Amino acid sequence: VKQSSACSFAADLGEYRHFMLKEIFEQPQSVAATLEGRLAADHVLPCLHGVSDALERLAQVDEVQIIACGTSYHAGLVGRYWIEANTDIPCQVEVASEYRYRRQPPRKNLLFVTISQSGETADTLAALEKIKENHGSLATLTICNVAESSLIRESDLALMTVAGPEIGVASTKAFTTQLVALQLLMVLLMQAKGADAGKIAKIVDDLRKLPALIEQALDLNATIEKLAEHFIEKHHALFLGRGELYPIAMEGALKLKEISYIHAEAYPAGELKHGPLALVDSEMPIVTVAPNTALLEKLKSNLEEVRSRGGVLYVFADREAHIQEADNLHVLEMPHVPELLAPIVYTLPLQLLSYHVAVQKGTDVDKPRNLAKSVTVE
Amino acid sequence: VKQSSACSFAADLGEYRHFMLKEIFEQPQSVAATLEGRLAADHVLPCLHGVSDALERLAQVDEVQIIACGTSYHAGLVGRYWIEANTDIPCQVEVASEYRYRRQPPRKNLLFVTISQSGETADTLAALEKIKENHGSLATLTICNVAESSLIRESDLALMTVAGPEIGVASTKAFTTQLVALQLLMVLLMQAKGADAGKIAKIVDDLRKLPALIEQALDLNATIEKLAEHFIEKHHALFLGRGELYPIAMEGALKLKEISYIHAEAYPAGELKHGPLALVDSEMPIVTVAPNTALLEKLKSNLEEVRSRGGVLYVFADREAHIQEADNLHVLEMPHVPELLAPIVYTLPLQLLSYHVAVQKGTDVDKPRNLAKSVTVE
Repeated sequence: VKQSSACSFAADLGEYRHFMLKEIFEQPQSVAATLEGRLAADHVLPCLHGVSDALERLAQVDEVQIIACGTSYHAGLVGRYWIEANTDIPCQVEVASEYRYRRQPPRKNLLFVTISQSGETADTLAALEKIKENHGSLATLTICNVAESSLIRESDLALMTVAGPEIGVASTKAFTTQLVALQLLMVLLMQAKGADAGKIAKIVDDLRKLPALIEQALDLNATIEKLAEHFIEKHHALFLGRGELYPIAMEGALKLKEISYIHAEAYPAGELKHGPLALVDSEMPIVTVAPNTALLEKLKSNLEEVRSRGGVLYVFADREAHIQEADNLHVLEMPHVPELLAPIVYTLPLQLLSYHVAVQKGTDVDKPRNLAKSVTVE
Repeated sequence: VKQSSACSFAADLGEYRHFMLKEIFEQPQSVAATLEGRLAADHVLPCLHGVSDALERLAQVDEVQIIACGTSYHAGLVGRYWIEANTDIPCQVEVASEYRYRRQPPRKNLLFVTISQSGETADTLAALEKIKENHGSLATLTICNVAESSLIRESDLALMTVAGPEIGVASTKAFTTQLVALQLLMVLLMQAKGADAGKIAKIVDDLRKLPALIEQALDLNATIEKLAEHFIEKHHALFLGRGELYPIAMEGALKLKEISYIHAEAYPAGELKHGPLALVDSEMPIVTVAPNTALLEKLKSNLEEVRSRGGVLYVFADREAHIQEADNLHVLEMPHVPELLAPIVYTLPLQLLSYHVAVQKGTDVDKPRNLAKSVTVE
């Protein structure tokens, strides 16, 4: 396993006040490094390290099981939406600490995928050991950022993220590179299953645009720094998303929890009426990631109720959607992005939001209380 | 479809101050009514209404997909643990508003199960329409409390809950009877697949004890009323569970949200270190449902950290586990229950907790702000 570009990431702060901000701004570079040498003109090149018959095994896959913890789990949830939308392969995702302790029915021709930045997450390793002991998979594959890690050593296959070292405890560039790796895996599965070549070429073409789109999203930094002032006195927040943007809402909420100690919680937007709407008042800001207008259309009836309760909405939306600002409805315009890239690009403003809220609250951004960078004990 | 015992539930408040409390205390009766006439000495009797070849279809089932919203979704999550632990049939659960709007890979011999108290939940009905239009299932089955509802009319099969009318917006007896129905369905699947007769007889035997165990759990009412005082000034709470108790923690958190407007959130206990631990301080009580000691063993390292931050733990645990009280560790002793019944019995104290907190806070218990009983619009 070779990590060609990792050496280009400096391990010092440079011009940045915190490692987290540095790592947020490194994402155009870390995403480009994770794509580097892996895209041909119209398809994805073999980029799995490990057993020699990797592509033959992918062709046989009937099911995918993704296992991870924390932020990596959110990446897995996006991967599930992508794989199920673009292949005929069912994909399940489960938190490692749950998976390892319960019985699962046998699955046929299972690709067992672990995701971990460090490759040392104890519960994830234990889940991998469990499936290996039971001979329960066709192949084990890890998406990991550290070449010499236990997960790499113990897995049949590795798809490396090339994020470089991540120092901030709250994961940022590791997450977006995991998403890139999952999209590469999705395309490899499509290729192995003989999916439409034109569709694959379009995805590859879009992936090439990703670093530039991330740069554009980072242009929102000053706007979001100002927006963060609205959150520093709050104790709660709701994050809403739908489809593959729901895990991005989860990740946005987790970031706000981790470093600014605001109790943020994510919901799939359609579940708002089934309970959490009772919480909404002027003290509960609601952040919505809505790359296209479909979510907003669905939200309209809730929206009126939210606003009539004094609830304030912050909507990150495609600038081409031309959403109108209104009382208690703030719109933050995002670049127009291809649908499959939206979860990656919409992660950026949520990372920046949690960062600026934490800085303005004066918390220890890079080392939030109670948390460790890698959870190597159970 | 015949709802023989429903008429025995009075629609007035009687001695109770709120419908919610009345409905909580009706659960021994509603659970007994849902079991009535469905248990033989050592197996579950056919209790599905609809197409005549119900049992033949169950024998062919290769996968189960459960679709629901809100509280019913939590019941579905417990059902998944049960089905996957006791059969070789993989079971997935998804929120209806998510399922209906995304592409799914084709599944083989799918039993498509919807859960809804009213049988009129708009998103759940739309998900059912979607699977029917695509001819994507072997059979559609609904677990529902209202015989003349749309879901019953539109499904091949119905497994009625016999909860009687539920007036309180926050669902209580509908939820526990849904769990009973899911356990009956699990046993029907075991029988259809030729599972071990002794194992089935033991489950049936345990199910007979359920109404009495629920009565015992209700004996905690006065203790919980007193405990509720600890929560009325709080704005946050964490609920922890593991395995099939994790969805019960989710349901406990949802109840507290819905009627006492406290921002409660549930986590699988193993995920605490991956983020939410940063939130813990003396203002964040932590409620844990731990029928056996395994969860507590796993929690011990977290527990010390939680307590050193001033975090206060409230643990509902088996009285035979003899957990010691300590500073900031309150233990509430529960009756000893068979493992499969724990999710049902441990629901009761969490319902009572949210009820008493709401009453002491003075909220409108039976009609919480912003919420409707049945969400019949999208």
